[in-house]
Order: sequence, then structure tokens, then C-alpha cells
Amino acid sequence: MGVGFTEFFSIHLATEHPQVIPISVFIVILCLCLVIGHLLEENRWVNESITAILVGAVSGTVILLISRGKSSHILVFDEELFFIYLLPPIIFNAGFQVKKKKFFHNFLTIMSFGVIGVFISTVIISFGTWWLFPKLGFKGLSARDYLAIGTIFSSTDTVCTLQILHQDETPLLYSLVFGEGVVNDATSVVLFNAVQKIHFESLNGWTALRVFGNFLYLFFTSTILGIAVGLVTSYVLKTLYFGRHSTTRELAIMVLMAYLSYMLAELFSLSGILTVFFCGVLMSHYASYNVTESSRITSRHVFAMLSFIAETFIFLYVGTDALDLTKWKTSSLSVGGTLGVSGVITTLVLLGRAAFVFPLSVFTNFMNRNTERSETITFKHQVIIWWAGLMRGAVSIALAFKQFTYSGVTLDPVNAAMVTNTTIVVLFTTLVFGFLTKPLVNYLLPHDANQNTGGNGGKHTAPGSPREDATLPLLSFDESASTNFNRAKDSISLLMEQPVYTIHRYWRKFDDTYMRPIFGGPRRDNQPEC
Amino acid sequence: MGVGFTEFFSIHLATEHPQVIPISVFIVILCLCLVIGHLLEENRWVNESITAILVGAVSGTVILLISRGKSSHILVFDEELFFIYLLPPIIFNAGFQVKKKKFFHNFLTIMSFGVIGVFISTVIISFGTWWLFPKLGFKGLSARDYLAIGTIFSSTDTVCTLQILHQDETPLLYSLVFGEGVVNDATSVVLFNAVQKIHFESLNGWTALRVFGNFLYLFFTSTILGIAVGLVTSYVLKTLYFGRHSTTRELAIMVLMAYLSYMLAELFSLSGILTVFFCGVLMSHYASYNVTESSRITSRHVFAMLSFIAETFIFLYVGTDALDLTKWKTSSLSVGGTLGVSGVITTLVLLGRAAFVFPLSVFTNFMNRNTERSETITFKHQVIIWWAGLMRGAVSIALAFKQFTYSGVTLDPVNAAMVTNTTIVVLFTTLVFGFLTKPLVNYLLPHDANQNTGGNGGKHTAPGSPREDATLPLLSFDESASTNFNRAKDSISLLMEQPVYTIHRYWRKFDDTYMRPIFGGPRRDNQPEC
Repeated sequence: MGVGFTEFFSIHLATEHPQVIPISVFIVILCLCLVIGHLLEENRWVNESITAILVGAVSGTVILLISRGKSSHILVFDEELFFIYLLPPIIFNAGFQVKKKKFFHNFLTIMSFGVIGVFISTVIISFGTWWLFPKLGFKGLSARDYLAIGTIFSSTDTVCTLQILHQDETPLLYSLVFGEGVVNDATSVVLFNAVQKIHFESLNGWTALRVFGNFLYLFFTSTILGIAVGLVTSYVLKTLYFGRHSTTRELAIMVLMAYLSYMLAELFSLSGILTVFFCGVLMSHYASYNVTESSRITSRHVFAMLSFIAETFIFLYVGTDALDLTKWKTSSLSVGGTLGVSGVITTLVLLGRAAFVFPLSVFTNFMNRNTERSETITFKHQVIIWWAGLMRGAVSIALAFKQFTYSGVTLDPVNAAMVTNTTIVVLFTTLVFGFLTKPLVNYLLPHDANQNTGGNGGKHTAPGSPREDATLPLLSFDESASTNFNRAKDSISLLMEQPVYTIHRYWRKFDDTYMRPIFGGPRRDNQPEC
Repeated sequence: MGVGFTEFFSIHLATEHPQVIPISVFIVILCLCLVIGHLLEENRWVNESITAILVGAVSGTVILLISRGKSSHILVFDEELFFIYLLPPIIFNAGFQVKKKKFFHNFLTIMSFGVIGVFISTVIISFGTWWLFPKLGFKGLSARDYLAIGTIFSSTDTVCTLQILHQDETPLLYSLVFGEGVVNDATSVVLFNAVQKIHFESLNGWTALRVFGNFLYLFFTSTILGIAVGLVTSYVLKTLYFGRHSTTRELAIMVLMAYLSYMLAELFSLSGILTVFFCGVLMSHYASYNVTESSRITSRHVFAMLSFIAETFIFLYVGTDALDLTKWKTSSLSVGGTLGVSGVITTLVLLGRAAFVFPLSVFTNFMNRNTERSETITFKHQVIIWWAGLMRGAVSIALAFKQFTYSGVTLDPVNAAMVTNTTIVVLFTTLVFGFLTKPLVNYLLPHDANQNTGGNGGKHTAPGSPREDATLPLLSFDESASTNFNRAKDSISLLMEQPVYTIHRYWRKFDDTYMRPIFGGPRRDNQPEC
């Protein structure tokens, strides 16, 4: 070709389509990640996220060398890229693939971990950093920054643990970790946005209440929007039955509407993450029964693939970003200072999570102590739940970029320091904690003994209705024998538990009688949901 | 909400994610298109393209009114958006879904239509416009512009006709129209790029030859690159067998590699359109046999869906763009002048196509007159082939934008005039010619009599090997009876036909013995390809 490699590239860069090179390089690296991830699949020590981060770091180094120290980035990070293109498929897929029965079965526990937990963790991390950072000589952050840091480091990345836990072996644990992961992501982002709206100038006693009110408003409106879009899609798909003419149209409608739900939420300044999650739940509950068999298979795989690519993409980016020398140079912290600050954050993450996992588990167990239908969260399980939520991932990075940079660039030393610290914490927790997850789970739940540990695994027989319908005999048993004594004793428990089950039963009746005939879905009797 | 609709929108526009609104609006309109297209499916007069253009025009009007005459666009057109994101899925899907056997069976005819045809059409349109435009008072175009116009209006849009022709009823016609459509698109773009490279300052006798040489170089290197990427993907999928662990990875690899082939071609300044087409052919021939059943189904649907969305997107854009007042105002032509110029172009399109379809058909028939294995292209078929290629679509628009605008914007009156004229020609041919296609096809090929018209339809029995293997008995018949006489008579025909069949037979042997064991695919015996 006559010209040298770099020259050839820069000539091209200057002339035609500037995106072509980075896109090509990124796709090659993505493919590489997939292949390596596949080869390491049997090696359960290293998971997908770790692979992607490491591959990203290596490519970052190569690019740094090629560009002679100028840049380690293939693509310029845009938190818009993340929030508009990468996050929606991940969250939608979570909603679409969630085992709805399990999710709603453990609804209260999941919600208490996912919502109350984030609040507790945010408070601890915010106060902890606010108290400790100045002692380390790291100053210059505002009250808003500290609160933002609290939410940034309260969002977990549970992908890693889920790759190790087995849905069939430990269903309770799996459903709690998965459910919490989704709710937690949503809560963190909503809380982060609520924090942005605080007027710190006119801070008073009502502020905390207002943040909470704002949070509740966002939470409910977003959920309702997601449900509405999901129902509309289901209704349209059922009424028009596109499959009659072309399966392509059904698929296109599903993908487009899923994306639209997120966009609409953003348009109305709601939480797209919650909207798209519930849209996914509704679509898999109704819409996916209104399409042809091939569309059902295809949609499931498409959403999984999009989510997978988006996740890998993000971790790859985190890997390359770790080598962004500009940010390291701009940072106001020395190497020691950086280590100190990220050490503090990591410790607070450990504490913040412990501060709600163990108490809330004990509380849940206390509530369920006499109701045989709910399973106990043993101490070993609590440790795993605690550990599973220690990894920090894509959402943390994206929120940190949103808070501390302007389109991925920052010239402010304090902000640069926070971005580099976020990167370090994400790298450390994902790599080190992630690496230790497998041994930990193996140690706490030896593979063969899983079924007996805590007596929970064995309880779950087949997936599907039997488990749920077991509430009916249990209820009638409650009514008959030692009823009154139990009732008095379980008053709080009933207050917590009964409504959910009652609602659940009414809901199923309502679903069967009104919703499914309108929005689609099989008759309940012959539907072993999976 | 307190604030008015437009205010609410503009407030948002200014503050957060500026893409959110246009993306939301575009998705809503896309969904609308899908629904309307579905409802009109039985009404075979109006096809998908026409629906999309009309919906686009209506939305353009609405936006024009809302923005008080400022703009009719939802998104700013970027020819990069088209060439980097929209075109690749369309062409890849064409390659992936093409009936390879039919395509290669009629290879010579398709290639002569697709390649020689474009050259003839380009010459006629270029000379015609160069001769007639100044007579209409439309001046200011350079020689390069005229040649570009030739290629721009030589690229057909056959989607419309394909929606009307039935693969099972008229397989020859379908395969010719489909095959020509793909080759024609590729040839136009390659030729367009070759024209860009002409140095008009040092024009001499060798220029035409050099353009042709450049064309051949691009044609072959692009094809080879596509084949290479397809083979590598197939090999990787076969060797690693991703499906063992996760179907998501196989799918992701297929999608990413398909896209990569296009990007690599662009990176090396080749023709991405040809590369991605052949990558699609290879992937469906080998790779799709190396993945799990569900991935096979999913990939087929995903590619179809992406292509479908991209096509609808483009026609929607053309519809909204038709109302872009700025371009109309910038145009150097009066209303009458515009009508004259687009009338001239439309006439030249009609002539340019007639100038190769009929002669080349006659030539093909002449070549095949004694070989019973090839079907005659009757005059009625010729008319349909001619008509099927009259519609101008997405590629024309994109090339016109590339030639005459800078990222969709032009301030030059002459360039603006060319863009508006392209829009008019595309609208006119798609709407009017497209609308008349169905009646024409019905008139020429009455539905029940299809099988007898020209005696071609009936000849194709089942899809698959029988048809192709029929060449062997025919050959042995040639050898036995009136051989020598026929041989002398068919010498030219044999020169044209024999190599293809011989190559095809050798290729199949080679494919079975070497390629399939390495790159995947079933044994030939039990593979009724479809």
C-alpha cells in the first residue's frame, strides 16, 4: 500500500467516513471478546465482564502505543450513547427474561433490598465519603456531588454472580439476586436523577422528604408508562395479528415499541430504566403470546443478543478507559491519594451493602418465620447476596460520567479524580471480587449439598403453578387448626405477607378473566410458565 | 404541563438529550407505517414503499406546520447514516435470503442485466441529460455531475415489483428481477465511486478504460473480501461451536461479522455493498448450518427485520424530504423548469432501461435457443423486467445526496435543483410506476394462466436439486443422438453456457469434498435448498 500503517489510517480518518475505523476496530475487539469468553466458558473463574475489561485494557494499551500516548480510546464515550443506546436493551432484556412468577413471589423481599437497600447504602456512602474524603486531603466536592457519589456506588452489577449461580439449584437465591439487581439499577438511576433536582440553596427540613416524594413520583409514573406501552403493544399485536402476513412486522413492532417506551420516558423526564423494564415484563407476559412461534423464538434471542452486545461493549469501554492518560494526568490526586480514595469508596461499598443485606434478611426471615410458604434466607445465603451486589459496573460508570464529565471529557482536577476513582472501583470490584465469587459460592454452597443447604433448594419442585398453588392448602390449614393463636402471633407477618398473596390471587383471577382475553396469553391451566 | 406543546418540546430540545424527541417521533411514525402496511397488505395496489413515502409526506406536512414552515425533517439526513447504518442490513439480507441455486443458475443473464445494463443505462442517461439539460435552460453541471447523474438514475429499486411477483409462480422472472436488483445496486454504487476518481483535467482516450479497470478492480476485490469474511465466520462458528454454551454468542458473531465485512470494505475504499452481499451469500451457504436451530431461525428473521426497518426508514425519509422547503427555494429552477428536468430524467430512465433489457433478453434467448435447459424470456417477461427496474429508490437518493449536498445541506442552486429533481423522480417512479405494476403484471401474466405463459413457470418443478440435475440427462442426450450437428450450431451457445454448467458441476464437487467439511453445511444429497 506504500504508506505506513498509521499514516494510512490517518489519511483515511481525514477523508472519508470518520466512524468507519473505530467501528471496525470495535467490532473486531467485540468478536474477540466473544470468542475468548466462549473459550473461557468452562473456566468459571473468569466471567464475561472480566474478559471484556481485560480485552479492553489490552486494546487500550495497543491504541495508546499506536497513537504514541495520545489516546487509549477507540470511541469517544458519550453518556448519551450509554443511556440512549446501550442501557435500554440491557434493562428491557432483564424484564423480558425475568421469571415473573419467582419475581413476584419474592416481590417484597426484592423490593426491600432494591429500594430500601439503595437508600441505606446511598446514605452510608454519601456520609462516609463526605466525612473521610477531606481527611485524605481530597476536597472540592459539593453536597450534590457527595449525594451523587452515594447513588453512583449503590448501583450493583450482578451479571457476574448470576453467571455462577444456577437457577435450578438455588432458585430463591437466583431470583433474589437477579430481582435485586434490576430494581437496584432502576432505583439508583431514579435516585440519582432525584438528587440532581435538589435545590441546595434552599435546603431545609423538607428536602429529604421532597427527594423521596420525587423518587416515588418517578417510580410510579415510570412504571405506569412501561405497563401502558406494554399493554398497547400486546393489544395491537393481538388485534391485528401481523403474523398473518409477515413475521418481520411483528418483530419490528416489538423491538420498536420496546425502544419507544424508553424514549417516551426520557422525553417526559421519567426513568426510562423502570419504564423499559416493566414494558419488558408486560411484553413477555402478553405480547409474546400474540406472535408466531418463530417470532417468539426470535424476539427472545434478539433481546438477549442486544443486551449481551451492549454489556460487552460497556465493559470493553471501561477497559480502554482505564488507560486514558489524560484523565489520570488531570486528576487532582496523587497515586497514594487515589488509592486512599478508592480504598475508602470500596470499604464504604462493603459496609453500605452489609448495612442493609443482613438486617433486611433477618427482618424478612422474622416476618416469614411461621409461614411455611416462604423460605428462610440462611446466613450463608445472606453472605452470597451481600457479595453478589458488591461488583460495580456499567451503571456506575455511566452515572459518574454524567455527574463528573461533559461528554466524557473533564478538565476539572476534582472531577477527573472522581472519574478515575470510579474506574478503579469498578475495575477492582469486578476483577477481584468477581474473581473470588466462584470460590466463595462453591465454599458456601458445595455443589452436591446445594439441595440441603438451608432446605430451600429442594423445596422448589418443578417450575410453574404447583408451587404457587400451594398457598391455597396452606391458607386453609391456617384457617382450620391452631388458627387463632397463629393469627395473633403472625399479625405483622400477615400484614406483610397476606396482602401480597391475596393481591396475587385476585390478580391472577383478574388476569385470566379480563386481561388475557384482551391482551393475549394462554389459559392459565395449561401454562407452565418458564 | 403548563407550557404549550411546541414550547415544551423546544425547552426539552435545548436541555437534555437532543436526540430523544426525533427518535421517539420517528419510531412512532415507523410503527404507524408498519401497521398501515399490514392493513393494506391485502390491497396489493399499494406497497410498503408507497405507504412509507406517503406517511412520510404527511408527517413532513405536520412537522412543517408545527415548526411554522421552518423544517419538514424529523432527523437531519446524513448520507453517512444511510451508507453506514441503513444500506448494509438491506444488502446483507438480500445476499442472505437469495435463492443461491436460482441466482447462480441464471448467473450470466443476471450479470449481463446488472452490469452491462447499468453501463448502457448510465451512458444513455449521462449523454441525454448533458444534451437536453442546457436546452431546458438548466446549466452549471460539470462533466462529473453528468456521469454521476447517469449512475444515480441507473440504480433500480425492485422491492415494489418483488412484492407483486410470486416466487413460486414465476421463478425465472422473480430470480432475474431480484438478482438484477442486487447486482444493479452494487454496480451503480461501484460505478459512482469509480466516476468520482476520474481526473477530468487530464481526460484522454484511456479514461473510459481506466474507469472500467477501476470498476473491475473494485468489483473483484470487494467480492473476494466478502467471500473471505463469510468463510472465516463459517469456519469460526463451525470450529468453536458456540451453541454449546450460548446461542447468543453465535448470533452476535453472525451479526457483528456481517457488519464488519461492510466496514472493512469501506475501510479499504472498496465497495461495501458487494462485500456484504457476498458475505451474506456465504454465510447462508455455510455459517447458518453451523449454528443451533434456534439461531438459524433467529438470524434469518433478524436480518429480514433489520432490512425491513432500514427500507421503511429510508422511504419515510424520502417522504419527509419531499417537503423540505429550503431545497425548493434554493433550487435554480422554476416550477416549469423542474417539471421539464424531471420529465427528461424519467424519459431517459425509461429509454435507458429499454435500451438494454430488450436487446440483452433477445441475445440471451438467442444463446439459449437450442439448449432446452434454459428458459426463454418471452416478450411479456421482457416488458415486466423492464418495468420492474423503472422505480428509483433509496440508493438513488443516497447517491444524489452524496454528489450534490454536504451532509444533506446545499446552498448551491444548481445542486439543490438536482436534489429536488431526484426526489421528484423517486417519488414519481415509486408512486406512479409502482402503483401501475400490479395491474401491468396481472394483465401480462393472468393469475391462472401464469403456468403456461411462455412455458417457463411449469418447467420448474419442486425447488431443489431435480431441476439442476436435469442438466446431466440433457447433456447425455446431446452426446448421443443428433450430437454433432447440434454442436456445431451451438458453438457460441456452448461457449457461453457450457463453462457455467461445467464450473457449476466442478464447484459442487469441490464444495462437497472440500468446502463443506471445513466450513459447514449438510451433505448435498439430503439438502433441498430453500
